[in-house]
Amino acid sequence: MPATRYTYLGPEGTFTEAALRTLPEAATRELVPMVSVPAALDAVRGGDAAAALVPIENSVEGGVTATLDELATGEPLMIYREVLLEIAFALLVRPGTRMEDIKTVTGHPVAQPQVRKWLAAHLPDAVWESSASNADGARLVREGRYDAAFAGEFAAATYALQPLVTGIHDAQNAQTRFVLVGRPARPAARTGADRTSLVMWQRDDHPGALLEYLQEFAVRGVNLMRIESRPTGEGMGRYCFSVDCEGHITDRRVAEALMGLKRTCAKVRFLGSYPRAGVDPDELSGAVVPPRAGTSDGDFVAAAEWLARCQDGRT
Amino acid sequence: MPATRYTYLGPEGTFTEAALRTLPEAATRELVPMVSVPAALDAVRGGDAAAALVPIENSVEGGVTATLDELATGEPLMIYREVLLEIAFALLVRPGTRMEDIKTVTGHPVAQPQVRKWLAAHLPDAVWESSASNADGARLVREGRYDAAFAGEFAAATYALQPLVTGIHDAQNAQTRFVLVGRPARPAARTGADRTSLVMWQRDDHPGALLEYLQEFAVRGVNLMRIESRPTGEGMGRYCFSVDCEGHITDRRVAEALMGLKRTCAKVRFLGSYPRAGVDPDELSGAVVPPRAGTSDGDFVAAAEWLARCQDGRT
Amino acid sequence: MPATRYTYLGPEGTFTEAALRTLPEAATRELVPMVSVPAALDAVRGGDAAAALVPIENSVEGGVTATLDELATGEPLMIYREVLLEIAFALLVRPGTRMEDIKTVTGHPVAQPQVRKWLAAHLPDAVWESSASNADGARLVREGRYDAAFAGEFAAATYALQPLVTGIHDAQNAQTRFVLVGRPARPAARTGADRTSLVMWQRDDHPGALLEYLQEFAVRGVNLMRIESRPTGEGMGRYCFSVDCEGHITDRRVAEALMGLKRTCAKVRFLGSYPRAGVDPDELSGAVVPPRAGTSDGDFVAAAEWLARCQDGRT
Amino acid sequence: MPATRYTYLGPEGTFTEAALRTLPEAATRELVPMVSVPAALDAVRGGDAAAALVPIENSVEGGVTATLDELATGEPLMIYREVLLEIAFALLVRPGTRMEDIKTVTGHPVAQPQVRKWLAAHLPDAVWESSASNADGARLVREGRYDAAFAGEFAAATYALQPLVTGIHDAQNAQTRFVLVGRPARPAARTGADRTSLVMWQRDDHPGALLEYLQEFAVRGVNLMRIESRPTGEGMGRYCFSVDCEGHITDRRVAEALMGLKRTCAKVRFLGSYPRAGVDPDELSGAVVPPRAGTSDGDFVAAAEWLARCQDGRT
Repeated sequence: MPATRYTYLGPEGTFTEAALRTLPEAATRELVPMVSVPAALDAVRGGDAAAALVPIENSVEGGVTATLDELATGEPLMIYREVLLEIAFALLVRPGTRMEDIKTVTGHPVAQPQVRKWLAAHLPDAVWESSASNADGARLVREGRYDAAFAGEFAAATYALQPLVTGIHDAQNAQTRFVLVGRPARPAARTGADRTSLVMWQRDDHPGALLEYLQEFAVRGVNLMRIESRPTGEGMGRYCFSVDCEGHITDRRVAEALMGLKRTCAKVRFLGSYPRAGVDPDELSGAVVPPRAGTSDGDFVAAAEWLARCQDGRT
Repeated sequence: MPATRYTYLGPEGTFTEAALRTLPEAATRELVPMVSVPAALDAVRGGDAAAALVPIENSVEGGVTATLDELATGEPLMIYREVLLEIAFALLVRPGTRMEDIKTVTGHPVAQPQVRKWLAAHLPDAVWESSASNADGARLVREGRYDAAFAGEFAAATYALQPLVTGIHDAQNAQTRFVLVGRPARPAARTGADRTSLVMWQRDDHPGALLEYLQEFAVRGVNLMRIESRPTGEGMGRYCFSVDCEGHITDRRVAEALMGLKRTCAKVRFLGSYPRAGVDPDELSGAVVPPRAGTSDGDFVAAAEWLARCQDGRT
Repeated sequence: MPATRYTYLGPEGTFTEAALRTLPEAATRELVPMVSVPAALDAVRGGDAAAALVPIENSVEGGVTATLDELATGEPLMIYREVLLEIAFALLVRPGTRMEDIKTVTGHPVAQPQVRKWLAAHLPDAVWESSASNADGARLVREGRYDAAFAGEFAAATYALQPLVTGIHDAQNAQTRFVLVGRPARPAARTGADRTSLVMWQRDDHPGALLEYLQEFAVRGVNLMRIESRPTGEGMGRYCFSVDCEGHITDRRVAEALMGLKRTCAKVRFLGSYPRAGVDPDELSGAVVPPRAGTSDGDFVAAAEWLARCQDGRT
Repeated sequence: MPATRYTYLGPEGTFTEAALRTLPEAATRELVPMVSVPAALDAVRGGDAAAALVPIENSVEGGVTATLDELATGEPLMIYREVLLEIAFALLVRPGTRMEDIKTVTGHPVAQPQVRKWLAAHLPDAVWESSASNADGARLVREGRYDAAFAGEFAAATYALQPLVTGIHDAQNAQTRFVLVGRPARPAARTGADRTSLVMWQRDDHPGALLEYLQEFAVRGVNLMRIESRPTGEGMGRYCFSVDCEGHITDRRVAEALMGLKRTCAKVRFLGSYPRAGVDPDELSGAVVPPRAGTSDGDFVAAAEWLARCQDGRT
């Protein structure tokens, strides 16, 4: 029954699966690995799954373009949750393998730059070959094709391997952000520590357009959290912008900024408002970046009431 | 009965009276000259008059600070109409006076810079002395104290003088703008060629404040027509800004800009939306400065509907 | 000999004279009162005086338009000094006059709004009549035409009057700012607490122009201290902007902002850089509004050196 | 001898090689394919090659992150040329293969989204498997592992294959932009139709930073051509911006904008100014986006001369 089925970027044993299992409801869902981000999302579009978990951004590698582009085009989808996962690799080997036995290592191409320094320091002579995913690398070690694979420690059990070293990551604070995507419906409820995602297309190719779009946010005191340009496919130099801002679509400053963008851009696609992972709303007072004075919901309501009084002659 | 009484900046025979008489309803009102702008406006505040006509801006001399300051402070008032009047002076003399007889001339101090070049060319030896108003100057000529007075041609009849020369003005296009001011009530109806006046006070004395206020207009595509800084009286370097913008408070782009200013400024006083004198709304299509794309009422309505759909999950 | 002659807005006994006498060099100059601001400045233009002191701004009444317009047009002049003077009035009477004897009072029209509340409280029945200047009012009291005059306490001696009450001013912190104006030459030396004055004209009448000009300042971190719009005389709605900013023309951030305005505006007139009155440069560290990061002279020099390295391929 | 050796992203038969061969000097260089972008660039850094040609941007797939990140970090490099190449695929088969014989197809993963629609229409039942590069796919067809490969038509000869279909591309105007990268030296000469590349890092993580950086360009009238955010590797939400703007570092408006960014950003890396591919400088007058008034070199020179006159008192 689809309502209880969640797809994710597979195969089993990937970081995406680990991220998905951090969601409480994952325990009561059927979790189905898919071969690609488009496949995971198309299952949702087609009604075969209630939601899909896919990576959207990595603190080392940047935006996951397959996810960004899938969300920007095709049948609309919406984000309801995000999951932040620390990315640390384990070096998985068949039981009994020692460091000095390792001649070949594998892993997903994206993993390589994140373990390059570690490899140079600890296995300078090992030969790297990429595999289709970290989990796939683990499977190939199991089958004896390589001596060791970089993957999440949690993948060891799935493939009957042993984590020889754990906690490997060249960059500090390597994290991946995943989003839980479903068909469009009412956004997740406002928590006070929310993130809103959207994609905007330039009305025409005029050079100051991005500046104008950022001013739509700035003038309402809405902070930008992420911005990525993506080609529209209409030719070199034609971009759309995938953006996250602080706040929820029901926050009045966010709502007015979105309406301003809707009027100013050629097209805007709302991708959802959802709780920020790892941020406790109760601890957000005293936030790093306080919203600008005059941009709270109360300020907006007071201004609307004042306007009504002016229009009625009750100044 | 006050409802039919209009005050104006007197005395009789001033340009203000001439401006007032261009209003159709002036024919059925009791027109009462007052000694000063504050006196004319206080009569309205106190209920002794339905409205007052006062000058607010001259294309040569600039803003009329008494009017700007009276509208900014004290009991609130509102502008319902504006009148634009070409300012051209007549040289008024007692019947029989010839150019060569004129040794002394008078007029309001504000008139002097507007006729200085003419005087130097045609009456280089005449001595100028200021009088309290142009009309007062005419009276003093009548009484024989001066040989000639600069005033509106229409003042000749009132003071039994003769216009010896007419159409005198050093500057091209010298105009004065007058406003008809009443107690706060529902603004004048939208015509499509409207002007909105307001005063805004800085929240605190931070240097970028004016830039932020102008961006509140710019981001909604609202054109500024006039801006004047006035001291708040709280010390050197403390200003408020008296501003006119294009459009009516019921135009959505103007309404949102006003609410933005209300939230951003320490204080905003709405001074009215009213038809622009000398501008035919029907001829405004193809206007010199077209409103920015995406800022029509229709664009605002469409954006609000889109937002509602997003909030409901009907993207 | 003109080099030792300073003109000022007279007559003797005005606040302008008092301000002029606060300058150390005034003791060795011939101080000549003139009947008007244009007359005082024309004496400088014509070579009859080395400099003129004229009021430019009052914290209650605002900009002195005669001064602003004279500096903006005609033969160029430059500001070399500013003087700030607390404005407090004395009630000057002939010796022997008591409060209860005062039936008529006089003073400059600009003085009236600054003593209105005091008059209402202490001399509610006295009749006010304006005189051409505060000093002129004192003279008329001396001649017996009025019972009392509002003027600076220092005017008492000049006109053989007695200050009956001193320290009168409705507004707190009433101050007037005066400027010492000469023919264009090298600006006053940089002190570290300087003010730069200029006038800028819009290139064309496009509505966002002022916003663009303010951004020329803002992007270089230059704080605006004063801005006043003045009509250009070319018709209603055509303005130039008289502006003061923090800093000296030899400060690189100010220099670059001025060049930016020169390129962007139809015309810019530089009116001088000069020490800020009442501000000790040594105490300016920890200033209320610190300059934006990256806008010190050192930052500009470092950036220019970096650019040169880039252009030479020495990155 | 390294001075005559150019590396490129290999293997032989890729679009990168085709792009490289469009450069006149390629005929006299030793062209060495490398296994990766880092390898191609490291050969330049290490002195083993004079320059490297690598892809930087594809109009369908977006920025080539390996290139962007390599240019942003490590030993500095500089761009001297760009090459634009239309991307159209040929379906390469062993001689004699007919459409109905094709059961398996291969190609670089990046090629797949660009031929997906064509495949669905013409070979709906063929199974896709990715290969390490388009050229590698051609080799595997030669070896009989797959029936057909998508690659550039020019690769047919290299691998003794036959183009069965040519001109395949789902998106209109699919292009890839390649850059020729060398060690830092004097930038390419100004042509009048130039592009300048740089990377900028935020001074601190304050949300309005990007807006400020864009204003540094906008206020000098410099048009942005491309902007991409890339993670700095210091944690989620920490970005640098890879940017191209119109113009040459010796254009004064570009030079001043670069210096402004140098002062405002935590770090700026200049990546070169070079001729825009496919744009004839002589035809650029009447360009789509004319530079803003007041931003030509002549305007900058005039403003600098005016400033010098002001500083010297020769206004």
